[in-house]
Amino acid sequence: MADPLLTLTTDFGDGSPYVAAMKGVILGLNPRARLVDLTHQVPPQDVRYAAFFLAAALPTFPAGTLHVVVVDPGVGTERALLSVEAAGQRLLVPDNGCWTEFARRSGPPAAVIRLAEPRFWRPAVSATFHGRDILAPVAGHLSLGLDPHLLGPPAADWVRADLPLPAREPSGWRGEVVFIDHFGNLITNIPAEELPPAGPLRVRVGSAEVDRRVRTYGEASPGTAVVLVSSAGLLEVAVNQGSAAQVLSARVGTPVAVTVPGAANP
Amino acid sequence: MADPLLTLTTDFGDGSPYVAAMKGVILGLNPRARLVDLTHQVPPQDVRYAAFFLAAALPTFPAGTLHVVVVDPGVGTERALLSVEAAGQRLLVPDNGCWTEFARRSGPPAAVIRLAEPRFWRPAVSATFHGRDILAPVAGHLSLGLDPHLLGPPAADWVRADLPLPAREPSGWRGEVVFIDHFGNLITNIPAEELPPAGPLRVRVGSAEVDRRVRTYGEASPGTAVVLVSSAGLLEVAVNQGSAAQVLSARVGTPVAVTVPGAANP
Amino acid sequence: MADPLLTLTTDFGDGSPYVAAMKGVILGLNPRARLVDLTHQVPPQDVRYAAFFLAAALPTFPAGTLHVVVVDPGVGTERALLSVEAAGQRLLVPDNGCWTEFARRSGPPAAVIRLAEPRFWRPAVSATFHGRDILAPVAGHLSLGLDPHLLGPPAADWVRADLPLPAREPSGWRGEVVFIDHFGNLITNIPAEELPPAGPLRVRVGSAEVDRRVRTYGEASPGTAVVLVSSAGLLEVAVNQGSAAQVLSARVGTPVAVTVPGAANP
Repeated sequence: MADPLLTLTTDFGDGSPYVAAMKGVILGLNPRARLVDLTHQVPPQDVRYAAFFLAAALPTFPAGTLHVVVVDPGVGTERALLSVEAAGQRLLVPDNGCWTEFARRSGPPAAVIRLAEPRFWRPAVSATFHGRDILAPVAGHLSLGLDPHLLGPPAADWVRADLPLPAREPSGWRGEVVFIDHFGNLITNIPAEELPPAGPLRVRVGSAEVDRRVRTYGEASPGTAVVLVSSAGLLEVAVNQGSAAQVLSARVGTPVAVTVPGAANP
Repeated sequence: MADPLLTLTTDFGDGSPYVAAMKGVILGLNPRARLVDLTHQVPPQDVRYAAFFLAAALPTFPAGTLHVVVVDPGVGTERALLSVEAAGQRLLVPDNGCWTEFARRSGPPAAVIRLAEPRFWRPAVSATFHGRDILAPVAGHLSLGLDPHLLGPPAADWVRADLPLPAREPSGWRGEVVFIDHFGNLITNIPAEELPPAGPLRVRVGSAEVDRRVRTYGEASPGTAVVLVSSAGLLEVAVNQGSAAQVLSARVGTPVAVTVPGAANP
Repeated sequence: MADPLLTLTTDFGDGSPYVAAMKGVILGLNPRARLVDLTHQVPPQDVRYAAFFLAAALPTFPAGTLHVVVVDPGVGTERALLSVEAAGQRLLVPDNGCWTEFARRSGPPAAVIRLAEPRFWRPAVSATFHGRDILAPVAGHLSLGLDPHLLGPPAADWVRADLPLPAREPSGWRGEVVFIDHFGNLITNIPAEELPPAGPLRVRVGSAEVDRRVRTYGEASPGTAVVLVSSAGLLEVAVNQGSAAQVLSARVGTPVAVTVPGAANP
């Protein structure tokens, strides 16, 4: 059997001794654990970014993978820490909603447990680093086969941080930018499956208009803003060999309106 | 036997859910795969950077390592995807030349196959993310022992992106900066083995002159620009404890001329 | 038995072919080696940053983990390379003190050996990249079980780069900022165990005053500067949901003075 897989997602930055300390704690409990870095570049305390990231990244992992997520602005306060099973994946997360968009898209949680058994934690728990002191040791124990139900009682409720839903309008859809990737491509919350599979679209991003629709980036000349379907099946606005975020002055939250020409007059 | 090694080289950035999704696809097919991140910081769509990077990094890996490279400005267009065997290494790459400088330096390809068998791909292939939908699943299958010849027909031809070659001149060499590392050191395309192993050199980088030759950085006082032999055996211009790129206003492509005093009058 | 664990800590940057080349050399010697990236974002040649980083990160790792550290401004000069055993951890380091703060806090070295046996190195050793040419192959050999005493003679002495110690004063402590994390939190060298566990503190950071003491970030309203105990047990100054480094214009080395009200008049 393959050694157990654990992934790490944090907002600690790649230079951080905090990430290294968590790896040490996990490997100290289970030297066979196979660690996979997902990202340590979630913008500081940006739960919404983490929510999009996890929803996009987790579904491809093999069933039973354990994902440790530390984007935790509420560390040390009364917010809970959770063990979640959903859509075949296992997560250890702060109760701030970072995982609920993943579950909404991929499958409702089969178990949500509130971590309450300090015997699976480090002996001294700091007030500012529960990733190292609680989540990492619990991950180590789970990777060794611990039954998650021993970690604490079922959670009756939890915080949700689902991404905003787009709205149907007479002439199309109204939504917003929910993610900007490293290339500056704008990913919206408007599902491409709700739009005609081909044919013209008029897209307003903030105060800019884009109406060139393509299947892939290379179909447009460099510098041209285009509309296409993202790899996650969402409406995307891109600039071939450039940054749509810069060219169109857009950011996460910028409103997006899609008009399907003729849709209002069927 | 050790579990199979797969490396990843992309221009997705370290914060990217795209990298995470590829890791999930590979591990979903082969949970024993051992993933090694080479870099996700290739500048966006910079095939030439990738070419230098792979030529420098790949030769040290054990024979049979599988390298997945996703720097792919042509994604979704008619450009091919290739499985390459060269110098003992195996690569999965877009056909944009990112691998040919490696082969030129380390050994000609023993096999180049055009990926053409969708049964080894994800069932739904997006137009914008062949890394996740084609290269990652093919990598998973190869790591399980699939014969590469089942992936498609031999490629008759492929794109080359070799780095520019330097030119011999009466008094020395004329070349250019081909890579700038994290410290701002300028790596040129002029092979040090073509120059006298010691003795004075006069190097012009753009409009700046550097004539202090050293064996290693620490021989010069901080802030001094020096000429030395890079760890890859190329002429390098550096500033001890500083950035030669900044101090000399150089970038990739900046012309470099080397004069060996006395060489023109033997 | 689990395959051997090796960690990597460098100042090469995440985009670097130098890191990739080191990974290849280690895996070329021992394909079973399990590589864990700690960081490649040590600021260029910043031995003091590395010293803090290693002291914070290494203690959590399982005994016998091998840590390869390449922050090496003196590469190619007469500085030695060392194999160190301390507090159950094994390190391969340049002799520049990057490891001594770890040993000071966690336990004195049980063995310090000067690397002197070229038969465990790459056949051609460059003057600028001993990480690839000496440390990586030595790491590969050690991970295969080589006795460290075969690497060279015991070192009689070594460079120390311990972090500055704080000073006791009549009314409190005088120290400095020794580390700034990705969030902009200021970690000082003043041990929290020397201060009253609760009650008011007055902290001067450079020319700014902070006197709000909390247990964790979330207790203060966003934007408020606070004093708390860091996860490493040191006095920390933070701004909830902001960067204390920016708000207070502080950097590594900025003086910090702590006054315990009433302490001077017992």
